[in-house]
Amino acid sequence: MSYKSDIEIAREAKKRPIQEIGDKLGIPTEHLLPYGHDKAKVSQDFINSVQSEEDGKLILVTAINPTPAGEGKTTTTVGLGDGLNRIGKNAMVCIREASLGPNFGMKGGAAGGGYAQVVPMEEMNLHFTGDFHAITSAHSLLSAMIDNHIYWGNELEIDERRVAWRRVVDMNDRALRDIVCSLGGVANGFPRQTGYDITVASEVMAILCLANDLQDLQKRLGDIIVAYTRERKAIYCRDIGADGAMTVLLKDAMQPNLVQTLENNPAFVHGGPFANIAHGCNSVIATKTALKLADYVVTEAGFGADLGAEKFMNIKCRKAGLAPSVVVLVATVRAMKMNGGVAKADLGAENVEAVEAGCDNLGRHIENLKSFGVPVVVAINHFVNDTDAEVAAVKDYVDGHGAEAIVSRHWELGSEGSADLATRVAEIADADVAAFAPIYPDDMPLFEKIETIAKRIYRADEVLADAKVRNQLRDWEEAGYGDLPVCMAKTQYSFSTDPSLRGAPTGHSVPVREVRLSAGAGFIVVVCGDIMTMPGLPRKPAALSIGLNAEGEIEGLF
Amino acid sequence: MSYKSDIEIAREAKKRPIQEIGDKLGIPTEHLLPYGHDKAKVSQDFINSVQSEEDGKLILVTAINPTPAGEGKTTTTVGLGDGLNRIGKNAMVCIREASLGPNFGMKGGAAGGGYAQVVPMEEMNLHFTGDFHAITSAHSLLSAMIDNHIYWGNELEIDERRVAWRRVVDMNDRALRDIVCSLGGVANGFPRQTGYDITVASEVMAILCLANDLQDLQKRLGDIIVAYTRERKAIYCRDIGADGAMTVLLKDAMQPNLVQTLENNPAFVHGGPFANIAHGCNSVIATKTALKLADYVVTEAGFGADLGAEKFMNIKCRKAGLAPSVVVLVATVRAMKMNGGVAKADLGAENVEAVEAGCDNLGRHIENLKSFGVPVVVAINHFVNDTDAEVAAVKDYVDGHGAEAIVSRHWELGSEGSADLATRVAEIADADVAAFAPIYPDDMPLFEKIETIAKRIYRADEVLADAKVRNQLRDWEEAGYGDLPVCMAKTQYSFSTDPSLRGAPTGHSVPVREVRLSAGAGFIVVVCGDIMTMPGLPRKPAALSIGLNAEGEIEGLF
Repeated sequence: MSYKSDIEIAREAKKRPIQEIGDKLGIPTEHLLPYGHDKAKVSQDFINSVQSEEDGKLILVTAINPTPAGEGKTTTTVGLGDGLNRIGKNAMVCIREASLGPNFGMKGGAAGGGYAQVVPMEEMNLHFTGDFHAITSAHSLLSAMIDNHIYWGNELEIDERRVAWRRVVDMNDRALRDIVCSLGGVANGFPRQTGYDITVASEVMAILCLANDLQDLQKRLGDIIVAYTRERKAIYCRDIGADGAMTVLLKDAMQPNLVQTLENNPAFVHGGPFANIAHGCNSVIATKTALKLADYVVTEAGFGADLGAEKFMNIKCRKAGLAPSVVVLVATVRAMKMNGGVAKADLGAENVEAVEAGCDNLGRHIENLKSFGVPVVVAINHFVNDTDAEVAAVKDYVDGHGAEAIVSRHWELGSEGSADLATRVAEIADADVAAFAPIYPDDMPLFEKIETIAKRIYRADEVLADAKVRNQLRDWEEAGYGDLPVCMAKTQYSFSTDPSLRGAPTGHSVPVREVRLSAGAGFIVVVCGDIMTMPGLPRKPAALSIGLNAEGEIEGLF
Repeated sequence: MSYKSDIEIAREAKKRPIQEIGDKLGIPTEHLLPYGHDKAKVSQDFINSVQSEEDGKLILVTAINPTPAGEGKTTTTVGLGDGLNRIGKNAMVCIREASLGPNFGMKGGAAGGGYAQVVPMEEMNLHFTGDFHAITSAHSLLSAMIDNHIYWGNELEIDERRVAWRRVVDMNDRALRDIVCSLGGVANGFPRQTGYDITVASEVMAILCLANDLQDLQKRLGDIIVAYTRERKAIYCRDIGADGAMTVLLKDAMQPNLVQTLENNPAFVHGGPFANIAHGCNSVIATKTALKLADYVVTEAGFGADLGAEKFMNIKCRKAGLAPSVVVLVATVRAMKMNGGVAKADLGAENVEAVEAGCDNLGRHIENLKSFGVPVVVAINHFVNDTDAEVAAVKDYVDGHGAEAIVSRHWELGSEGSADLATRVAEIADADVAAFAPIYPDDMPLFEKIETIAKRIYRADEVLADAKVRNQLRDWEEAGYGDLPVCMAKTQYSFSTDPSLRGAPTGHSVPVREVRLSAGAGFIVVVCGDIMTMPGLPRKPAALSIGLNAEGEIEGLF
């Protein structure tokens, strides 16, 4: 039997006009700002008007540590949303926007897969509603204004060697990682070394995704530390005077984007911060608005649960006052097999023993998630070649670890395949058994926050950090930043900082290479290992085969 | 008497839903892709469907050499369009999109003024429908792919010192004019010197504005010369393999943007290439589509008629097969006075003598425009303090120079003020008296083309160019580029290359500093004097006072 590709399925989608999708949510035409016929932004006035509504239940979808076999976290998020609607619930999906640049490196980006997708797929992987372009513009304006301030006399006494604000572009361009700017003589300013990150790594992105409204957005933008003086005094974006104009540039980008699933159910796709140097969740404004409009909101967090769910709980939920009712942990038989030592080429053959051996990673995540006070359901994202014995092995393991596992076939069957999962998830959410709490308090010293995550989530024995890092953390505590959460930046492939260490390692150390203050976003980034903030293109970039076909359709993007 | 500001008038506009504006043009809902409720793109399928319609009359609005007094070229374009609709004609306006970056330097950008504006003003000066972001993305992708090609082995043997393709950003950022990229070691590539231009200076912008359709767009993108080998062999965008993916990125940007005037008449606002190193006109696809949809299409060209109209005729019309029926030359009493030697501070006082003395500049433009075989009407864009005697002086002068001048009060009165102008312009257009022809043939040698423009339009005695420039032109002729038109890049403030030389100078020389081949756009850029392709921000950039007010409205942008 052969299966259709994601793009074939997406192209066959019977999309409804976006206003019909808005109607389901009670959004009047004048408050739904269309972008084409299948995308729209929700007006701030409408969002204001629903603030007195009761909140729906928040459901987080997260995953085991990713393997090359693929887990299908977004696919499961979309499938679960459709499943809930199928069983008669009023549910919405909230996911992140894709970054444009990386699509030209590797094929990818799609929002879900199989019969659990959000559409229009092509546009969501290209310019979509322009949010990321607006973020690039706002970031670039601040960059230009900093150098312009220095050029015209440097009244703030910025030390050119200590400009912390780099530039960004939404493109994989390794040539820009490290540059010298302002060459060419007096008219072009003072030469200095700097570089570019990809747009999703911009602090502006993290801010947009954590801000409650435009006022909060401007306040946070103003709080960004852009440089230091020779005396190490911090210079803020507010000092440069860029916060107002940046807010103007981000005015539309702040509004959630409404699209639909293949089954014509509503989905917000909004924001997309890095899951390493930022918190990796869709925007607070989208999630909170969805909770006002739907009884169940299914959202996801980046990477595996050790990074994504941890930050969702400790950063996003803490800061936005959100509390998940249930967590869905996505696992696949294939990923268990890889964790159990099977090579990717051999995944096709049944291997129950390897599945059992690989379940430790899953078990660790279950334990961790429960430590936030939230019930956990494991969704076995079914692949058509998974055998019954393999599935049973995962189920048995999960049963023995204080949770339950449910097979979901949304990829193959859409909501028909996810109805069982949806039914059970709704039951648990409705039971109101969650007693959510972040795993560290605001007033814990910063280094202890790092240790708490390293020991309780990663199960490391120790955190290694030299005096410079420890002193820096103490300085920030003295400067009033001690109550911020920490945002861990480490490999997504392992609980440890060694990407090759699969399963459920213990006894390892977490070396902190560097700490960074994202004062506008409101967290301390803790860099453990190499973190790439500007990807490069591969030898044969996907761009080489991207183009329009004779029908004017986009080929090669997926 | 006090007058409302442009932004006050724009905010009071009684905008109609954009679909109603589309209805006037016969565009079905499914072919009008909305961006909010007041902007839309017209689908390619619809454009294809109207190709058998007869063309309307094309009316070019141009101006005398600009002075600090302001001429109101766009204002007159919009006012004339509204005037034509007022007198019962079916007319459309086609103007250029504004660049985002410069708005944060100086206040400005507005699309028209007074009661002759296109709305929504704020959005047209910010992200609008994202066209310029798409151009930045497409340009950036090619930039990244060139360095990526070199990084992975440089199969094409690009000489890193001879990469001609710079980078672009839509921001005034002088620090990026001249940079060294690819620093930081082996993983980041081969360090080389390069720099950024502002997005409107990108050859991609010029290409988008000259392309007939997506196939033509891709062909032209492929034709871009991005670098040379050590042996001076040209490397094309097509060799890098970026043309297909760039076309995908520009797919939506190619479609014309429909908005409305304050009087709810349709306007296309599409494309915005530099008027010096590019041709400075709105897109060919918008102009051609408008001609299919309306009986009269009013469009404008950048800068004064010596640059803007000359390129409109010799580049855009030649290449797109367009022929204007009549040219409207905008002049103001104030500008005549400044040309006649009055300082800006003294413009308020009546000074008929200075008006008369300043008319030479106007007379020269009339003569030049007529040499393209097109009838000329002078529109005196009326300012409320202009006296009858001053206006009469301009009229008398124009009468004596083989044209007629008509006062237009669209700024103050909207179409009520431009009805006379519209009536006369329509009469002339309907009379079909134009016998348009470019002033040089395709097969004239390139240097002679430059001389033709310098002598016949600028009235210079000679063109000065060293052997390097002349040899370069000959090399391009041998390489098959001899049939391209030339795109002059010189100051807009004078017929000469000296911006302080007002009036109608003769006997001057035109020094050619440099020539550049825009092989994708299809012209040879001839640089005469200093041309800035990346502006800087001023000491007190407008961004400092741009922000949202308590009502959520944008302040400080205009």
